[in-house]
Amino acid sequence: MVAVLEPAHSKDTPAGGAFLFQDVGATRIVTPETLAEEQRLFFKTALQFSREQILPQAERIEGKDNALLRDLLRQAGELGLLSVDIPEAYGGTGLDKTTSLLLAEAMSLNGSWSVTFGAHTGIGTLPIVWFGNAAQKQKYLPRLATGEWVAAYALTEQGSGSDALGAKTKAVRSPDGKHWILNGSKLYITNAAFADVFVVFAKVDGDKFTGFIVEKDTPGFTVGPEEHKMGIRGSSTCPLYFEDARVPAENLLGEVGKGHKIAFNILNYGRLKLGAGVLGGMKLQLQNALRFTQERKQFGTPIVQFPLSREKLARMTALIHAVESMTYRTAGLVDARLAGHDKTAPDYETRLLAAVEEYAIESSIMKVHGSESLGSVVDDAVQLHGGAGYIEEYPVERAYRDARINRIFEGTNEINRMLIVGMLLKRAVKGDLPLFAVAGNVADELSRGERPRARGQDALAPQEVAAESAKHLALHGLRIAAETFGTDLEKHQEVLAALSDVVMDAFALDSMVTRTRQAASHGKLDPVRVALTQLYALDAVPRAFDRTRRALCATLQGEALDTELKRLSTLDVFTPYNPAELRESVVAALEAAGGYPLSQE
Amino acid sequence: MVAVLEPAHSKDTPAGGAFLFQDVGATRIVTPETLAEEQRLFFKTALQFSREQILPQAERIEGKDNALLRDLLRQAGELGLLSVDIPEAYGGTGLDKTTSLLLAEAMSLNGSWSVTFGAHTGIGTLPIVWFGNAAQKQKYLPRLATGEWVAAYALTEQGSGSDALGAKTKAVRSPDGKHWILNGSKLYITNAAFADVFVVFAKVDGDKFTGFIVEKDTPGFTVGPEEHKMGIRGSSTCPLYFEDARVPAENLLGEVGKGHKIAFNILNYGRLKLGAGVLGGMKLQLQNALRFTQERKQFGTPIVQFPLSREKLARMTALIHAVESMTYRTAGLVDARLAGHDKTAPDYETRLLAAVEEYAIESSIMKVHGSESLGSVVDDAVQLHGGAGYIEEYPVERAYRDARINRIFEGTNEINRMLIVGMLLKRAVKGDLPLFAVAGNVADELSRGERPRARGQDALAPQEVAAESAKHLALHGLRIAAETFGTDLEKHQEVLAALSDVVMDAFALDSMVTRTRQAASHGKLDPVRVALTQLYALDAVPRAFDRTRRALCATLQGEALDTELKRLSTLDVFTPYNPAELRESVVAALEAAGGYPLSQE
Repeated sequence: MVAVLEPAHSKDTPAGGAFLFQDVGATRIVTPETLAEEQRLFFKTALQFSREQILPQAERIEGKDNALLRDLLRQAGELGLLSVDIPEAYGGTGLDKTTSLLLAEAMSLNGSWSVTFGAHTGIGTLPIVWFGNAAQKQKYLPRLATGEWVAAYALTEQGSGSDALGAKTKAVRSPDGKHWILNGSKLYITNAAFADVFVVFAKVDGDKFTGFIVEKDTPGFTVGPEEHKMGIRGSSTCPLYFEDARVPAENLLGEVGKGHKIAFNILNYGRLKLGAGVLGGMKLQLQNALRFTQERKQFGTPIVQFPLSREKLARMTALIHAVESMTYRTAGLVDARLAGHDKTAPDYETRLLAAVEEYAIESSIMKVHGSESLGSVVDDAVQLHGGAGYIEEYPVERAYRDARINRIFEGTNEINRMLIVGMLLKRAVKGDLPLFAVAGNVADELSRGERPRARGQDALAPQEVAAESAKHLALHGLRIAAETFGTDLEKHQEVLAALSDVVMDAFALDSMVTRTRQAASHGKLDPVRVALTQLYALDAVPRAFDRTRRALCATLQGEALDTELKRLSTLDVFTPYNPAELRESVVAALEAAGGYPLSQE
Repeated sequence: MVAVLEPAHSKDTPAGGAFLFQDVGATRIVTPETLAEEQRLFFKTALQFSREQILPQAERIEGKDNALLRDLLRQAGELGLLSVDIPEAYGGTGLDKTTSLLLAEAMSLNGSWSVTFGAHTGIGTLPIVWFGNAAQKQKYLPRLATGEWVAAYALTEQGSGSDALGAKTKAVRSPDGKHWILNGSKLYITNAAFADVFVVFAKVDGDKFTGFIVEKDTPGFTVGPEEHKMGIRGSSTCPLYFEDARVPAENLLGEVGKGHKIAFNILNYGRLKLGAGVLGGMKLQLQNALRFTQERKQFGTPIVQFPLSREKLARMTALIHAVESMTYRTAGLVDARLAGHDKTAPDYETRLLAAVEEYAIESSIMKVHGSESLGSVVDDAVQLHGGAGYIEEYPVERAYRDARINRIFEGTNEINRMLIVGMLLKRAVKGDLPLFAVAGNVADELSRGERPRARGQDALAPQEVAAESAKHLALHGLRIAAETFGTDLEKHQEVLAALSDVVMDAFALDSMVTRTRQAASHGKLDPVRVALTQLYALDAVPRAFDRTRRALCATLQGEALDTELKRLSTLDVFTPYNPAELRESVVAALEAAGGYPLSQE
């Protein structure tokens, strides 16, 4: 591999997508182990709030008690949990993004609350933080920071979900210039029933996609009935209707025709946060499943003793470890980009957005990997509960239904898979990432039958090779696909989706190996972390190889395919480990800790 | 391979588990294409009932309208849908098992109805059909056949689910000998709130597991409150309480201490039926998803046009084809065992139970593969709906929740995975299946680097090789595991679970190839069936190899492992196909048919 090209504006912080080109461990990463004391304390406070105020009220929340949710938002506001992303000048604390993600994790123990909280502090508030003018910030942010007002975000319409810019809601200026007149409707709007402030997108003059701030009492604006949902039932989800709704002219958010900038930036950050926003739920359901299997006996034995139970518990833990390692690494990258910049400078928000956008690839990975890992964890948790997992009395039943939305919202996982490789290729074409140069080297190495070698000489050397091989697989597959399909590549979605899975596994393996090595004490790797990484690799290695092979099968044919498949076999780097031994190390640590053993608490 | 050893009592019908030792296509199998006219007509009638009487009432059913369910059962009774498994002498029609499975498929368009219907006609009624004495049959069956009375089945208890025989409910004979006095409780009993007749298991004298027929008005017997469930919410699920419940002596079902015979036979048949009982739901959700994606546009294009949508639709179809091919093949085997036997003979039920038990391996496969295929299909269907898939308004939301129970009940999939290979080994040890002899041949072939060759010379030759290789993988893995662990093998659940996955893929591939070849017209294979089989193989081939490799990693170590892994690579029989081309053939057929293109309608 060659060193990554760094954009000029940052000498030390790797570029977005750089992980694919850098060696494992090339730079130090932020992990739960490297958190600052204040971050750790803030996480503790937030987690305590979740455990003491949210979890005991889970049933009332599930019953869609809007007054309770508003009250809880106010309590959260009092603790400073609503103001992390709001600048100090507007009643916020303007903390770093790692803290913001720690908060998202802590708030995610209950799905309905997590979504309500996220809609308010994230997609509802951030458009004003990032794109509002001083007057708008002054008017709204202090009240949103305390929870006096609640925010919502209205982008989706009937007929435009993934195609967000296909919205049909219209805005025209009133003849006297004092208002924008909105007509249209929005669908699936979180917090709709009780929000005070809505960020709404509409098209000016038919095609200029634009953001507006709409207050709840706006004439001509109404909130429709609640949707009945599979999960996150405690959260409010309604359509919005605009019939000649009169929005004051000063409530234009940002510039006319620049609404896509708001929407895309919000989505980027939302995707990154989703990775954190599944961690709390995953850890809680792991703990619930562990306890249940310790207490429930079958055949005279606690079911935690059965190997198939332990296999599931270990798999759940490994997925949590993977998501956690990627999430805080990415948060740390964003923060590193912002380090040393004056938070009160007028261009700070622009820098922040650039930093978030820089890691859009990683954020889409967090969205897809996070939501699918959550899906796997809650599915295992239900199964470990047996019949009880199907009964509402047990929290895992709700968690299973709640989890399913994560693969759909913030851009479906299909859309995000396209984005992961799409953005990689776009950056490569722009020269920001050395994709084609490095892929060329990989092809040469493959022709010589060379596979990546480990630089580390420790127990994780095979997983380092696995991470590097996954990168080579992805790069090789991408280069061939780009060469074969040219500008038509984006139409070959199955190829892109398969390769984005490989990119994700590369990022996960790289992050886990790097984290575990960084956390080594006196050069000694922690055996539990090693086992978690090896367990993940045992699944990921054949998967990455198979996904790449599949991509090639959908790209080439005949002799060209045969030749490439033969070359590819060099990267079939499966290393045998006894899965039963690995899961034993993991489950023993789980049992000793009474839950996820590596938490940042 | 060598010819399979056939149990003496049947010369023509392959033994249970024989598929693993016989060449692909060694015997003709029953498929939807080979159905008799009466079977086809019966299926049509049943499907029409489902579509006209059940589907339009889905919302009322979901609201737990017990009166409606009873009414629908009566209507079904009038059409003869409740009496297929009941002998003619007792008001039934005593039809073949293929018809019974066709009926289960037709009734499965709605989960709550499917479970209600199945609890009544299956686990509720069959214990009396199979183990009742003449007086009991005379009293109950005619009324159960018409739906005048509704049946339920009470086995599970708090603390004994998978461990069914661990039940704590007790029965003692009253001093005057006229009653059995039952004390204890049962959990998760389907149809409980409105059933008239309950088959209940209790232990006599502390350890003699025994069946009883309990009528709803029995003194001391009460039905507890409804459970609130994740899905199948229209079905009734309650606990039962027995406090000195006085059951008439004549309501003993079968013999004291022989309750396990009832329970195991009922489970066997229930598992087989589950494979059919997921097909209707899968086909309906495939159709719903197809329609939705044809109607819903994003980016100006119907989303059915996007390759990732088409990939999902094709995957759903391939799974349906796999489950369908295995289900009716197995039903046909049971019927073949019974062919020529007098249905009115006193030993007919004994023969029938023997026939069902003979295919217990295949039945457990149907249970696991059927429920997991259903899970995959409804998951894809939700995702294809995007946000709408999360809203109760769309039937797929309910289907997703309903589906999840199938991996839990009738023995969890974990238990059934253990059974699949456990029964194979047991039969091998008894000499009923030539597992060790054939596995020895496989080992010799592997030592010579020989992989299975196709006997057919058609487009499915690589999939025939894939099927045979999966068998070799399973046999080889099982032999090594048995040799390594000896009588401890059952403790190594991960090894057994991994190998049972390979056995399932072998059965699926064998069934699909055989079916497709049988259905060839004038020697010409149907390209859609070929594509479905190839698509399934594209996933199954690497999966079977990987699962076997994993089993070996959990079995051997050091040099022995290295040697075996090297030998195993001979069975890495991946054949490249362009997945995009395969899915195009499938989806084109789907679009032309407006749904699953190979239905037996």
